[in-house]
Amino acid sequence: MYNQKSYKLGATGSAIRELFEYGKRRKLEIGEDNVFDFSLGNPSVPSPDIVQKTLIDLIENVDATKLHGYTSASGDAFVKEAIAKYLNEKYQAKVDSNLIYMTCGAAASLTITLKALCNKDEEVIVFAPFFPEYKVFIENALGKVVVVGYQEETFLPDFDDFKNKINQKTKCVIINSPNNPSGVVYNQKTIEKLTDILKEKELEFNHQIYLVSDEPYRELVYGDIVVPFITKYYDDSIICYSFSKSLSLPGERIGYILVSSSCNDTKGVFASICGAGRSLGFVCAPALFQLMVPKCLGYTSDIKIYEENRNLLYQELTSYGYDVVKPDGAFYMFVKALGNDALKFSELAKKYELLLVPSDSFGCSGYVRISYCVSKKQVINSLPAFKKLINDYKEI
Amino acid sequence: MYNQKSYKLGATGSAIRELFEYGKRRKLEIGEDNVFDFSLGNPSVPSPDIVQKTLIDLIENVDATKLHGYTSASGDAFVKEAIAKYLNEKYQAKVDSNLIYMTCGAAASLTITLKALCNKDEEVIVFAPFFPEYKVFIENALGKVVVVGYQEETFLPDFDDFKNKINQKTKCVIINSPNNPSGVVYNQKTIEKLTDILKEKELEFNHQIYLVSDEPYRELVYGDIVVPFITKYYDDSIICYSFSKSLSLPGERIGYILVSSSCNDTKGVFASICGAGRSLGFVCAPALFQLMVPKCLGYTSDIKIYEENRNLLYQELTSYGYDVVKPDGAFYMFVKALGNDALKFSELAKKYELLLVPSDSFGCSGYVRISYCVSKKQVINSLPAFKKLINDYKEI
Repeated sequence: MYNQKSYKLGATGSAIRELFEYGKRRKLEIGEDNVFDFSLGNPSVPSPDIVQKTLIDLIENVDATKLHGYTSASGDAFVKEAIAKYLNEKYQAKVDSNLIYMTCGAAASLTITLKALCNKDEEVIVFAPFFPEYKVFIENALGKVVVVGYQEETFLPDFDDFKNKINQKTKCVIINSPNNPSGVVYNQKTIEKLTDILKEKELEFNHQIYLVSDEPYRELVYGDIVVPFITKYYDDSIICYSFSKSLSLPGERIGYILVSSSCNDTKGVFASICGAGRSLGFVCAPALFQLMVPKCLGYTSDIKIYEENRNLLYQELTSYGYDVVKPDGAFYMFVKALGNDALKFSELAKKYELLLVPSDSFGCSGYVRISYCVSKKQVINSLPAFKKLINDYKEI
Repeated sequence: MYNQKSYKLGATGSAIRELFEYGKRRKLEIGEDNVFDFSLGNPSVPSPDIVQKTLIDLIENVDATKLHGYTSASGDAFVKEAIAKYLNEKYQAKVDSNLIYMTCGAAASLTITLKALCNKDEEVIVFAPFFPEYKVFIENALGKVVVVGYQEETFLPDFDDFKNKINQKTKCVIINSPNNPSGVVYNQKTIEKLTDILKEKELEFNHQIYLVSDEPYRELVYGDIVVPFITKYYDDSIICYSFSKSLSLPGERIGYILVSSSCNDTKGVFASICGAGRSLGFVCAPALFQLMVPKCLGYTSDIKIYEENRNLLYQELTSYGYDVVKPDGAFYMFVKALGNDALKFSELAKKYELLLVPSDSFGCSGYVRISYCVSKKQVINSLPAFKKLINDYKEI
């Protein structure tokens, strides 16, 4: 028999994908504009012009065998140097281009990093609510998922729970700020609190505990919110980055892994990342998109459009009586499920053609996720449905 | 400690890559034109014009959010339909587009397929000489590598050895024709002989034995050589394809997995492939290059250039007294190592600035691989070195 774990993963899609597929069918039935699909995190704002310009420039002016040829497995040296220079200027960090490994996007960054770090049955801590695929990626690396709870209202980590769950078997900790699904951003104080605990526990258990920072939404923050650059706060840290969301290129699969230059045994950790990439089948990240990166560093899609959606949804939903966690970043909003049963509420919302992902698969119950990376028109048109939903609910 | 298997894979590069890195250093020392680097399988012929034309057309005319957005995890439906149609017309095969899974190139096709099929400690048969990364990929899927020997002179499988090595634990068999490193192509008779054995063994052991056909060189054959389309000969077959070599796009990572529509339990096998892709971190194959595919099906880079290199090298090397396996396909040539010690001979060749990969890492001893995907100029300029090498050797 073929591999049953793989089969189950393939046969039971994610809750998000299932709702998305339902949406596709429903749109065929009643028309695209009549379904308010907030299920997927697929950027709705086009890439900045520099992306298309750079791609065409490369295709027209670079010799095709060079342009489309293999780069080094860890990525093109010039590209990695450009990324290091950009990060060092922007964050006054000490990024070493030799510790950057170009990847096929965020998922690859994570599967490679986890396979590089974990030995069988070692523990990986994630903070609820978390991106459901973390569990799949950790189990692929033969690790064990340990979930730490959150503080009600703020959705910041429950630090006491965190402390209690670190033990001799803890290999690494994944953070994701700005967060999918809550939109919460960890500020400097939170990062310091979290890394202070990690430093204390590294001493207590006398081994490295790696902090893996999953940052596809790093640039997607609103107002004066700042995302701390993680290597400045903790030595044994590894950043998993992707250009999917900042440059609206989710389908192109381009990102990187960055090992802190202050990490213990950088050479060994980096070699392990190279080895993990090799065994998973990542030979090199897509070359054209690697070569696009240097020209596009510092650019983002027009995130004001997401901010407008956020403001409008937050203002209206709270005015209707919804309990909403105000997101500082990413393009997700967490809303308390009426009746505290997310699955039931998500089903009920479907009757109003609202597609909202229940929070259970994110490792916490009682909420739904709204992906507001949609057109402003969809947000505006959906408001009466949100209003009707809560009003009808109150009458039940 | 981080994962030691990953570390070792990263710290000890492949023999091919090591020779390539040596070549890079040597070129800096004595000049690029003075090193005859036959180490890497990086296509030297540019992509056909249709590739650049299609890429620019897509970038200029398709809405950026659609062009660069996520496709379905298994790939864009329109692209998969185009591939199925093309294959059905070309090979009179019964390809079902729903059984195609778009991948990030050949390595991904293999790691996903092996992870989809293998349970722990099940056996995967490979035929010497074989691409060394097979071992890495099989071990990533927790399988065990079983090597079947070859017939001297022809480098076809040793069929008796093959029969003997199939047992209750055999999960799948990997073939690679046209072959890296020997350039040998399995003709219809060979495929029939091989699949007849597999059919017999499926009955004997009463379970599926999958035939995985790794075909990145399918289109790279010379003269009137025909590559049989594997699903027509064996039901439980899976093709792993890549456009890397046929369209000279090795860095862009685009290929596909195709499950035969006659395979037992196609739905289950395909779901398992989807699940394996998910757990390894392959969310979707690079979107721009997926969408490029339909327009480029049936095109190849100008393979006459490889054929000229092959003819010239074969003619000259045999005239100097080398023992050469005449390749029918791919862009590799296997040459008997003088003194039968490939490592020693490869070292000796370096003194003549000839970079030839010793065959030991391919699972057989006593040969070197010449990758003749280089400029004709390099081939011509290298000939005196080959001549001097054999003449000097005879004198020793």
